Amino acid sequence: VSRAGAIGPVAILGAGSWGTALTIHLGRRGTTARLWARDETLAREIRETGENRRYLPGIPLAARAAATGDAAAALRDAELVVVAIPSQFVRATLAPLVPRLEPGVVLVSAIKGIEPERGLRMSELLAELAPGHPIAVLSGPSFAREVALGRPTALVAASARLEVARAAQAALAGPALRVYTNRDVLGVELGGALKNVIAIAAGLSDSLALGENARAALVTRGLAEMARLGVALGASARTFAGLAGLGDLVLTATGTLSRNRALGLAIGQGKSLRDAEAATRTVAEGVRTVSAALRLARGAGVSLPICGAVAAVLFEGVPVADALAALLAREPRPEEEEVDVSRA
Amino acid sequence: VSRAGAIGPVAILGAGSWGTALTIHLGRRGTTARLWARDETLAREIRETGENRRYLPGIPLAARAAATGDAAAALRDAELVVVAIPSQFVRATLAPLVPRLEPGVVLVSAIKGIEPERGLRMSELLAELAPGHPIAVLSGPSFAREVALGRPTALVAASARLEVARAAQAALAGPALRVYTNRDVLGVELGGALKNVIAIAAGLSDSLALGENARAALVTRGLAEMARLGVALGASARTFAGLAGLGDLVLTATGTLSRNRALGLAIGQGKSLRDAEAATRTVAEGVRTVSAALRLARGAGVSLPICGAVAAVLFEGVPVADALAALLAREPRPEEEEVDVSRA
Repeated sequence: VSRAGAIGPVAILGAGSWGTALTIHLGRRGTTARLWARDETLAREIRETGENRRYLPGIPLAARAAATGDAAAALRDAELVVVAIPSQFVRATLAPLVPRLEPGVVLVSAIKGIEPERGLRMSELLAELAPGHPIAVLSGPSFAREVALGRPTALVAASARLEVARAAQAALAGPALRVYTNRDVLGVELGGALKNVIAIAAGLSDSLALGENARAALVTRGLAEMARLGVALGASARTFAGLAGLGDLVLTATGTLSRNRALGLAIGQGKSLRDAEAATRTVAEGVRTVSAALRLARGAGVSLPICGAVAAVLFEGVPVADALAALLAREPRPEEEEVDVSRA
Repeated sequence: VSRAGAIGPVAILGAGSWGTALTIHLGRRGTTARLWARDETLAREIRETGENRRYLPGIPLAARAAATGDAAAALRDAELVVVAIPSQFVRATLAPLVPRLEPGVVLVSAIKGIEPERGLRMSELLAELAPGHPIAVLSGPSFAREVALGRPTALVAASARLEVARAAQAALAGPALRVYTNRDVLGVELGGALKNVIAIAAGLSDSLALGENARAALVTRGLAEMARLGVALGASARTFAGLAGLGDLVLTATGTLSRNRALGLAIGQGKSLRDAEAATRTVAEGVRTVSAALRLARGAGVSLPICGAVAAVLFEGVPVADALAALLAREPRPEEEEVDVSRA
């Protein structure tokens, strides 16, 4: 039953582009999908127009998918709950809904980020908010718009308990959406969060027109940096070579639809962080993640030069050219010592 | 002396875009660089116009760089010889020049490909043609045009003998060109060759407008496939996570200047292989490499589904949509079993 198994209603919490895309996908494959929008007005707009014009204009919801502002209605009898809320709003948004969850229902985190204050990953935050619920993490290279359009996409469903990962796989996989299971939750979540920081760096590099060679080198060293931190914290190096690491990084650092790369570009073109966040109109998770990553790295005794350069630009006003020049000025060592993504 | 060390003349054999770019780079950093073109007319054009209008129009050679059709003049007193000849012409072109090489001069292979007939890597072919010469391999993410323009680029110089890799590093590194050493020659050469096949697959995928999610998944699985073959043949998994693996693959499979991706696009849009090769005007090494890769894989008992799909399209007339659908139809397994790039 790894694809399109018969399954009861799925609730999707969060009507941004990703939650909406998953709702459209589920409706298309015949699952009853209930999209909950915190904003009643948005829920009504989606119901009335049959599409989410704010976040995915032009792509209709399927007949079996519907939007609501009533969380109780969305969650009633749900066999699976997908949480697709930007990381900084998860706590405030989810806490009041927890009493409405069906007992034992699987929560699927479709959130990419790390809580800056305590360095919590999103599955840890969900476990704290909704104790006792099995949790899976959904990640991998996925522009929401393409998933909504039914373009082929491969994702990872991660849980330390394989049967939970399989439940998420069965509930979400479909003809155009392949879902692989993975038991390395830590690696999958770090990959999904950290790639956003490297994507900001790619945007900064592109803003100076450093070229595609430089960006490819940045992606390579960025993945090594991600894996270095992940392995130090206990993740598997292999996860970073997979869809939630390399795959998502490639998409986010080179893709045309990437919010985090767009933010880096805007900052590099002279916009303030505030203006750049306003201009990209959606949440660039990398801004929040970079501080959390550097704190985790200090604790683990790991060096993250690219994350450090991004933080210097975003928070300390260091000019982009100076921050990137400092990265490039490091004396090259034997590559074996630089690239340790495969060290487990 | 890892960058810009004083060094005698460097000869560059092959006046295509890559040989010309390295010549321009070397001249700019103050090295006497002699570019040899097999085609006397091209050599004269470069001398007369001060640029290689065929392959890198608009980028002048520096004062210390010059082109010649006289191999003896190019090779005289050379302290290092860079071979930048398309793989299929190496044997015929290089054999007559070997007697002109200074004794013991280091040869640097800047060639990406595998000889289809015997599965020889280019360093093996050079060793056969010019026995007794130390050989280093230069690879990594590098569009020639960007190197010629002085954009930041990171490369790998590989040799089983570290002092040979260091000699290549010292001769070639410069302010905008970082060169890392690596001792895994096999991994570096397989990475540089195989990524061209995956880039053709990316072009085929793009020709069907499958989207950036699908391409990112293809890149991820492609790197796993490259590493699987490499590790089976004795390379280090780590090399595939580095510049000559992941870095070059990202550039070639997503970059706008990639010949192999352009060839895949042209084939997918209905051109014959012959017409597509003519249209891209330069040599798409992936076409030759795919057969060699599949032969090596059979010998090693390794499965290369993406290479198989590319071969089916290029040589057996299988429609692109069918070949890619077959790839996507494989049942997803746990990701740990799929992505084994880190398995050493």
